[in-house]
Amino acid sequence: MPSIAILGAGAMGSGLANALTRAGWDVNLWGTWLDDHLIDAIEAGTPHPRIDTVISDRVTTFRSGDLAEALEGVDVVALSVASVGVPKVVEMALDGISKADALWLTTKGFLPMPDGRIQLLPDGIRRIADEAGVTIPPIVAIAGPVKANECAANEPTATIFGCRDYDVAVKYAREARSDHYCIEPSNDEVGVEVCAPMKNVYAIMLGIADGLEEKTGHPHHNLKAATFAQAVREMSILSQKLGADAATAFGLPGVGDLEVTGLSGRNKVYGVRIGRGEGAKAAMKTMEELEQTVEGVNAIPLAIDLVEQSAPDVKDQMPLLYAARTIVYDDDPEFANIVARAVLPPMP
Amino acid sequence: MPSIAILGAGAMGSGLANALTRAGWDVNLWGTWLDDHLIDAIEAGTPHPRIDTVISDRVTTFRSGDLAEALEGVDVVALSVASVGVPKVVEMALDGISKADALWLTTKGFLPMPDGRIQLLPDGIRRIADEAGVTIPPIVAIAGPVKANECAANEPTATIFGCRDYDVAVKYAREARSDHYCIEPSNDEVGVEVCAPMKNVYAIMLGIADGLEEKTGHPHHNLKAATFAQAVREMSILSQKLGADAATAFGLPGVGDLEVTGLSGRNKVYGVRIGRGEGAKAAMKTMEELEQTVEGVNAIPLAIDLVEQSAPDVKDQMPLLYAARTIVYDDDPEFANIVARAVLPPMP
Repeated sequence: MPSIAILGAGAMGSGLANALTRAGWDVNLWGTWLDDHLIDAIEAGTPHPRIDTVISDRVTTFRSGDLAEALEGVDVVALSVASVGVPKVVEMALDGISKADALWLTTKGFLPMPDGRIQLLPDGIRRIADEAGVTIPPIVAIAGPVKANECAANEPTATIFGCRDYDVAVKYAREARSDHYCIEPSNDEVGVEVCAPMKNVYAIMLGIADGLEEKTGHPHHNLKAATFAQAVREMSILSQKLGADAATAFGLPGVGDLEVTGLSGRNKVYGVRIGRGEGAKAAMKTMEELEQTVEGVNAIPLAIDLVEQSAPDVKDQMPLLYAARTIVYDDDPEFANIVARAVLPPMP
Repeated sequence: MPSIAILGAGAMGSGLANALTRAGWDVNLWGTWLDDHLIDAIEAGTPHPRIDTVISDRVTTFRSGDLAEALEGVDVVALSVASVGVPKVVEMALDGISKADALWLTTKGFLPMPDGRIQLLPDGIRRIADEAGVTIPPIVAIAGPVKANECAANEPTATIFGCRDYDVAVKYAREARSDHYCIEPSNDEVGVEVCAPMKNVYAIMLGIADGLEEKTGHPHHNLKAATFAQAVREMSILSQKLGADAATAFGLPGVGDLEVTGLSGRNKVYGVRIGRGEGAKAAMKTMEELEQTVEGVNAIPLAIDLVEQSAPDVKDQMPLLYAARTIVYDDDPEFANIVARAVLPPMP
């Protein structure tokens, strides 16, 4: 049986752990120094606090001090920590990663480098390894419409494994598959890595339309659908500009993941609060008090930096991204008009 | 000011009437022999029964016997009747249509010909005109994510005007635009006409995921998102096979309209009933008792005929369409597994 060390015992790491036990894998689940309470719950057999689902007792847990033991002899290492933790955890785990056949990546986000440049996560990880003089195995970018709680609970789930080496993607898409956890292999690492953080930004914008419905008492479905279509358009434009295939933004990582992220989750909830009229900054304070990190908020300025550094000629084709910055960071009370202007077709 | 005769006083015809008065058009709204109660409400200034919105008193109403008067001297004729009524109403209005500068089409559906072949609506209308020896003006196919009630109420709405003659699409996209009714011109008549009826089929499938959530008490968001992505894929495959641009299925008529149709409406409600476990046939009976036509149900066999007649080599790439037939027409109680098999990636 293949074996894996999943680094990060949060929602997605734990969801993946359950899915892989169903496919017969030996799973080590390592919790960071922030995850002790999660490991406690898993070991006690009580529902995981973040996903309200029990993690299989076939998963072997490791605490933050036992990283080397967790990595010992595994075939695959999976990185499932928050994106801000990537540089540190990669450095800590570099020796184990270098000995594995592949590094899987469920963490998603844009990585700001010390020099201010924005990198996609796999590029950032390869750079960290290069600088340490360590050779790492192929990276498999995992994304698509996967709510971790449903994945953990064995609800039907489609996901995508993107690796520059397509044969590697196919190998793991076969080995990790189970009846309800089905994997599409792809060679489009860039497309997967661009869509995943972008969809969090756009899910905020979808939430605004829902919030407007709550505020006004009548649906804003036409606006929500126009927002959805514009979001997909912008993901496809940016990802293709950075070298991705068109199919990725229009498939599971783009269209599919935007759909699931717009149905529930913190990004959408935050957007609903804005749409209701709570004010973007006040709503953010509320989310912080609830200890609910809104990934899309952090992604906005990084995405704009990425566009302006690496794809400046498509800047004008991404009005919804810039609208997100105006609404969230400038707290503009005209948010409803700003969304409409960004997503309704211009005068031809 | 441009003038229009809108044929059909149902939801979409009346919504379009309100939108066009805002753009300064002179609007004649003709009700069919089935629409007298709708015309009554419009003339009384009470909310339109189908969309709960008052229709502007600048709209001039006509009853079924006054078709010639409604068509007299207008620049544009718009066809907004139910798709089954298209042949009859086109024949009745042919003289007026032939004198107009354009025929707009908000009606959507696949048209079964007497010989059993399935045509797209514009092709069917051109055939009817040809057989009568009448020359008709350019057809503008109107679609996209437009709930008629929101359009009528001046909520922000994005739509698409598709005409083989792109300049015609641009002309009307400019002339019909108002602040909250914004139009993207397109030359892709085929793409618009394929996506519009197909999305009704797929909205039923999206509803099933919502119904499963009601039935089981836990979300099926991953399944719904995988269904959404597969639906978009199938719309793009079929429409491109029939000559459409890729952009159409991935834009407002495909992705956008599927999003809005999956949020509310009869197709989605019917799917929810199936997902809840009411049984496809029993649920259809309930919808019929409520006088709620489910367009997607009628579209399923026509779409399958269209595929098998005109695009047989993509048949195997459309498992969700065939799953819809099995679920709706065979009333298969294994519907949840059937959807999952159709939308989860196969073993690579």
